[in-house]
Amino acid sequence: MGLSRKCILFVAMSLDGFIASSNDSLDFLKSIEKEGEDYGYKEFMDTIDTVVMGRRTYEKVMTLVPEFPHAHLRSYIITKNPKPTEGNMHFYSGNLSELIHSLKTQQGKDIFIDGGAILANSLFKINAIDEIVVSIVPFLLGDGVSLFQNSLQNKNIELISCKHYSTGLVQLHYTIPSIS
Amino acid sequence: MGLSRKCILFVAMSLDGFIASSNDSLDFLKSIEKEGEDYGYKEFMDTIDTVVMGRRTYEKVMTLVPEFPHAHLRSYIITKNPKPTEGNMHFYSGNLSELIHSLKTQQGKDIFIDGGAILANSLFKINAIDEIVVSIVPFLLGDGVSLFQNSLQNKNIELISCKHYSTGLVQLHYTIPSIS
Repeated sequence: MGLSRKCILFVAMSLDGFIASSNDSLDFLKSIEKEGEDYGYKEFMDTIDTVVMGRRTYEKVMTLVPEFPHAHLRSYIITKNPKPTEGNMHFYSGNLSELIHSLKTQQGKDIFIDGGAILANSLFKINAIDEIVVSIVPFLLGDGVSLFQNSLQNKNIELISCKHYSTGLVQLHYTIPSIS
Repeated sequence: MGLSRKCILFVAMSLDGFIASSNDSLDFLKSIEKEGEDYGYKEFMDTIDTVVMGRRTYEKVMTLVPEFPHAHLRSYIITKNPKPTEGNMHFYSGNLSELIHSLKTQQGKDIFIDGGAILANSLFKINAIDEIVVSIVPFLLGDGVSLFQNSLQNKNIELISCKHYSTGLVQLHYTIPSIS
């Protein structure tokens, strides 16, 4: 879009490409939990001011924590069943392209695409994701929710950085060129 | 098995987990071809003396090159339709566990599992793969032959090393513990 504000998918997956088990469990992430290690999450959060999240991921998050963790940021929960806005939290059931276009034409920091796979793939399809930061967890889940669901075909992407951690997690940062 | 000879899967996949497109094309690998860069292949080949390969991969390889590239090594082509041995090349249609056990109880260098996905997953299922060296190509294929086909479930693996290259290829080397 020629604008500087980017949509960034920041996500963890097993080596075999799953972001959650088939019952939406994130237990596989326990294998890389380490005191004092956030794998760059806080640093990343400092670069964003807006969060876009799918409804199912939102509901999963709310079972894990007492309060919505992004309450201080502007956030959009993408849902088929809209609810009234709560503070900075907007329940959005309109056109996704229009939302992204609207956000990108506003001034601001980058936009955090906080999952899940359905939202990520909807955004891949409309070429709305500019960068992926994917943390590869040293685990084979075997089954579950696939991050990549055939939404981008024959697409070159570009590695920006590769970091590895003592827990065996490898964090890959790619840009997705808008034209491949 | 308590023996030192290892079965190592050395393979390249797209970020979305495919080792070939649905028509068995490897064209996506062209994106990381670079004069003089073999991504550690020769160094790896110096550590092995035996190759195990699936029939479909073997036939694909033979369409790409005039001669079998591992003719100087002992090799086993796993097939349902055995043929007579040709030089060092054995067409094997027996029990896969027995072959691997037999190879591992012999003296020798490590054993190269040279694909494809069917063989790799058959070997995952019988816990016969000790290490994976997976090169992640900065490409989204969208569809094709998946490397991981749900053969290992809820399995912790261990990162040995992570290398990244100027082409954007990232090579991850894991051990698969025989008991998770």
